[in-house]
Amino acid sequence: MNRLSNIYPTDRVTLREVGLRDGLQLVRTWPDTDAKRAWLAAEARAGVRHFEGGSFLPAARFPQFADILDVIETAGTLGVHSAALALNERGAAEAMATGIGEVVCVVSATEEHSQANMRRSRADAVALVGQVTALRDATVPDKVINAGIAMCFGCSISGDVAPAEVLRLAEACLMAGADIVGLADTVGYAGPRSVGALCADMARLCGDRPFIIHLHDTRGMGVANAAAALDNGARVIDASLGGLGGCPFAPGATGNVVFEDIVFLAESMGFPTGIDLEGLKEARAIVEKAMPGEAFHGALNRAGPPQNAGWRATPVA
Amino acid sequence: MNRLSNIYPTDRVTLREVGLRDGLQLVRTWPDTDAKRAWLAAEARAGVRHFEGGSFLPAARFPQFADILDVIETAGTLGVHSAALALNERGAAEAMATGIGEVVCVVSATEEHSQANMRRSRADAVALVGQVTALRDATVPDKVINAGIAMCFGCSISGDVAPAEVLRLAEACLMAGADIVGLADTVGYAGPRSVGALCADMARLCGDRPFIIHLHDTRGMGVANAAAALDNGARVIDASLGGLGGCPFAPGATGNVVFEDIVFLAESMGFPTGIDLEGLKEARAIVEKAMPGEAFHGALNRAGPPQNAGWRATPVA
Repeated sequence: MNRLSNIYPTDRVTLREVGLRDGLQLVRTWPDTDAKRAWLAAEARAGVRHFEGGSFLPAARFPQFADILDVIETAGTLGVHSAALALNERGAAEAMATGIGEVVCVVSATEEHSQANMRRSRADAVALVGQVTALRDATVPDKVINAGIAMCFGCSISGDVAPAEVLRLAEACLMAGADIVGLADTVGYAGPRSVGALCADMARLCGDRPFIIHLHDTRGMGVANAAAALDNGARVIDASLGGLGGCPFAPGATGNVVFEDIVFLAESMGFPTGIDLEGLKEARAIVEKAMPGEAFHGALNRAGPPQNAGWRATPVA
Repeated sequence: MNRLSNIYPTDRVTLREVGLRDGLQLVRTWPDTDAKRAWLAAEARAGVRHFEGGSFLPAARFPQFADILDVIETAGTLGVHSAALALNERGAAEAMATGIGEVVCVVSATEEHSQANMRRSRADAVALVGQVTALRDATVPDKVINAGIAMCFGCSISGDVAPAEVLRLAEACLMAGADIVGLADTVGYAGPRSVGALCADMARLCGDRPFIIHLHDTRGMGVANAAAALDNGARVIDASLGGLGGCPFAPGATGNVVFEDIVFLAESMGFPTGIDLEGLKEARAIVEKAMPGEAFHGALNRAGPPQNAGWRATPVA
């Protein structure tokens, strides 16, 4: 697992900026390529090293991701790790031909959501993970394959989700060759107890491999859920600058957990992030200017960290 | 401790609505007495049973609390528990002459804040707890005496606060006769680790008595901190409808943790609250109308609970 341990070391916390992908999925306006470059550069200056930069999707239907190659190239120039979604074999083949660091496949925890969202069964989605892995092995063995499992804590279509089902799918993804699996609370149904319990089970399943937790703040539980995840073995957390990624069906609803606030949380819990909050403020100013119609969330951007008290974890030597 | 066990039973979670006190402390506009009555009645209908209704302070300087007697009377009519701050002997004597259920004294965790905020030493503040308790014992023995300790997790004047100092003061307040002690993160410096650790120590100190945790969401950690508190023995949580109580020095900053969101958190963690979120929406509409200039926060009011999945704890028999 050298491929993985360099990118997601298990002895520290990694924060993945997913705003350029999840944050742009449903918005009306998005940054042009220059603004995306400036966004990436500003966050990289602030110490962010992991970016989900978009999706390999038809540009006609998803124009916000039409410049995915530019995003990947920019990440390469900046020396940061880039990831993007590939939702079928064509997308995966496209991804392999780029300098991207990580290809993300999506699996749903429920059959109903899998069919509705991807028009394929869960078994077919897991099989695609295997095909993408095989393609990677045959062409560019340095790329990480990430299998993200949606609706792990409840499904907007089918309701409650059994943790055992999620674990079965996670194991199937790992068996199919995924290097790393992500657990997503896609619709923000989770509370800290369910997140903590599933992360503890995942930590046992994954052994010395890391796994990802992807949380949405729809019901205000995002930071609490991230804390529970860190308390129970999660070491890779997805977040987006300003919580970009609101759902169009819930105006004003926050989407992803807020990157800035997760930096403060992780540091307060003893996990050094290497990320500078002032630098994130500069990045946010760039993105806010590029997306004037969007709501940006988060407390740290507004309040700043305590000025006269310790809040940083001791840095990793 | 019969007085206490009826009001704050240790076998369940109690949520205290502090919006009528902490939420009105620093605002420019506040509800008139009729609106306060409607606010109390609506939250009581939703199942809220504990209210901090104001402070015994000179009406000339704090006109928002001039109708504290009406608030106490309304609470009595509704059959809910009322509390109010008394910051000196005169205020305490006034309180004892009313039908209020609980008198709250304030102590600061740091000498600097105690002097700046109350113009008295911490020792004098603890002594006042003793005087108020003695007055209660001599006049109306059924009233609860609550000692709230401010700045327990960091102080805006003196910075870091040693947990041992907080515990020493908490013990001193209990020795002075307080029935219950509250730990306040007055300026939102805490993270879940510091909250969890101090609550665990407090639970040991308090034995079979409950204690209160009072959290501010200034840095977005409020819900995570409440989860850590519940995980470590806290059973009484302060919160305010819509997170009322923003600090005037940080525009848009949320103040108290959001009552609605703490209901969802507690239920998701297996603690039944008996509180109806639809009812809280109705209460919020009343308060928003009465305070048109204020910002109201919170995710549950916007997103609602999951419609197709379980989120309620099993009710207490």
